[in-house]
Amino acid sequence: MTRIAVIGGDGIGQEVTAEARKVLAVALPNLEANEYDLGASRYHATGEVLPESVQAELDQHDAILLGAVGDPTVPPGVLERGLLLKLRFDFDQYVNLRPSKLLPGAETPLADVKAGEIDLVVVREGTEGLYAGAGGVLHKGTSAEIATEESLNTRYGTERVVRDAFERAKRRDRKHVTCVHKTNVLSYAGGLWRRTFDEVATEYPDVTTDYQHIDAAAMFMVNRPQHFDVVVTDNLFGDILTDIAAAVTGGIGLAASGNVNPDHAHPSMFEPVHGSAPDIAGQGIADPIAAILSTSLLLDHIGQGEAATAVSQAVTAELSGRTPGEPLSTAAVGDRVAARVAEILG
Amino acid sequence: MTRIAVIGGDGIGQEVTAEARKVLAVALPNLEANEYDLGASRYHATGEVLPESVQAELDQHDAILLGAVGDPTVPPGVLERGLLLKLRFDFDQYVNLRPSKLLPGAETPLADVKAGEIDLVVVREGTEGLYAGAGGVLHKGTSAEIATEESLNTRYGTERVVRDAFERAKRRDRKHVTCVHKTNVLSYAGGLWRRTFDEVATEYPDVTTDYQHIDAAAMFMVNRPQHFDVVVTDNLFGDILTDIAAAVTGGIGLAASGNVNPDHAHPSMFEPVHGSAPDIAGQGIADPIAAILSTSLLLDHIGQGEAATAVSQAVTAELSGRTPGEPLSTAAVGDRVAARVAEILG
Ligand SMILES: CC(C)[C@H](C(=O)O)[C@@H](O)C(=O)O
Ligand SMILES: CC(C)[C@H](C(=O)O)[C@@H](O)C(=O)O
Repeated sequence: MTRIAVIGGDGIGQEVTAEARKVLAVALPNLEANEYDLGASRYHATGEVLPESVQAELDQHDAILLGAVGDPTVPPGVLERGLLLKLRFDFDQYVNLRPSKLLPGAETPLADVKAGEIDLVVVREGTEGLYAGAGGVLHKGTSAEIATEESLNTRYGTERVVRDAFERAKRRDRKHVTCVHKTNVLSYAGGLWRRTFDEVATEYPDVTTDYQHIDAAAMFMVNRPQHFDVVVTDNLFGDILTDIAAAVTGGIGLAASGNVNPDHAHPSMFEPVHGSAPDIAGQGIADPIAAILSTSLLLDHIGQGEAATAVSQAVTAELSGRTPGEPLSTAAVGDRVAARVAEILG
Repeated sequence: MTRIAVIGGDGIGQEVTAEARKVLAVALPNLEANEYDLGASRYHATGEVLPESVQAELDQHDAILLGAVGDPTVPPGVLERGLLLKLRFDFDQYVNLRPSKLLPGAETPLADVKAGEIDLVVVREGTEGLYAGAGGVLHKGTSAEIATEESLNTRYGTERVVRDAFERAKRRDRKHVTCVHKTNVLSYAGGLWRRTFDEVATEYPDVTTDYQHIDAAAMFMVNRPQHFDVVVTDNLFGDILTDIAAAVTGGIGLAASGNVNPDHAHPSMFEPVHGSAPDIAGQGIADPIAAILSTSLLLDHIGQGEAATAVSQAVTAELSGRTPGEPLSTAAVGDRVAARVAEILG
């Protein structure tokens, strides 16, 4: 019996998660899925974001499937910090795993890349950096206001995520890791990252490496995304770089992610990279592929490799069947992919 | 008599600046240009990065033309912080102005945009944020190492750059300003930025506005760069976003920038967005267009509007005459553009 906690969350999060659940139900017959009602509506109804007792229950699951968090009716940061980032930090999900592959049928805005040519994974640090929430404000709302944000970085936190990136690179065809930071300006944190990266690299003689500043990497992700294999970077740079990677591989509708605790000390959490998209919520037109591909990462993480592969094969088939510009129905996509997964798994 | 200080700097900085000087000499007959030898070679020869006396001399000029700073033989940050950022901060160049236009003949990696469709300017804050150099490191090189970076932001610094962005928007056709930050995670600095932006906006009823998180803006810059008119953002986000903007409008070889002190209290400094590119330095193949377009911004800043327009027209002509993929000679481009400027100014 595999126990999965499902947090649909806000906006289209609910809709795409419903489809991901359909697929999961087919891929993993022996499944207990428990819904948790968290997000904007619970916050408005009860003032609660993530009660301690709920967090303790979530911790008793094998993995968490999350839709999206964030709503225009809630002040920015309340749900993000109180729910999404709280789970990432408290469950020590230090590997924020974000693969980007240009699949046949996906619409890239780039002129000169073909399906198969982009196949990269960003290993984004998930528990440190500017996401720590350190900082403050003085004289708020006056002309004397100052506001600070502090990026906190440890050797411990840097080394474990860098090592994870090398481990992944070792298992891939090209065996290349690019470290991305901004050492020429952020010399304290950048120095720590760069030295740690170079040291860990010596343990992996078969893996080739390079280093790029975040501004150059962002440009490169547009000009020559084929260059990248594994990318390892800090929390904020990873946030930005993965949205660009998503853009060049068919958009945020296809981008999956896992907030992974590789030690399995707490459940890992899988979610589409996209947000709650309030503008299209409730219309049944959101693409559930990103959520569905996130279940493939989930299955892989809990040791269900065959089911994980079936889901990603079914998604590839679904995308190749698409006609550019054709409107889509969230539920129909989920039905089709679930049926294909059933077929593949026999 | 206009007095311009020229700092060629490192790598291709020297080469492209030589061409920019040719163009400037033609555009501004009454010109005194003084070369300052700063950068890696001076650092190696004397240990000096920016002597106080040199800085005082630079301060006596009407503007500074800079090539590029940074060299693999110098530890990261030494020249960047000691020279480039020192001038930006000490000369209070709080508006880091980075226009991006898709000109005819420029090679964009995007499939569906046509020349003229992208025409934006990023107003990047230049004197605050994570570039302040605040932070530190403890237990360096041990497993207990921690490193911090602090983003420092003031109402004073935010308001003046936001107001500058609105002033520029007011003078443009579309009159739109997009504020970019990350309010859902960086709530202290993001809150300051967002509140300041909304308040200043009320003074500009003719200017329309929107707000985007940096990750979404980075993606949008790839998917729909046509959306942007004026973008105002902090120092680090501006660094990243302008490299993406450069990528989609023909690459870093064309991207110009100005570090502007709008109050004219100190000289403003104009430089290509690209770096010193040690890999192609000394070969005479670097594109000097970015440096040349930076002189157009320089001329505009010192009140030489006609000369500024002549330079940008000459660049447009130069680009339309290019054949994609054809190798170029730095000096030949400079000669052609200078000749065209002479022609235009009659
Ligand atoms: C919603 C937000 C807090 C989050 C982040 O910044 O990490 C999102 O952008 C993401 O990438 O998962
Ligand atoms: C060289 C570096 C310090 C600089 C910056 O980060 O500002 C450069 O990337 C730029 O954009 O001008």
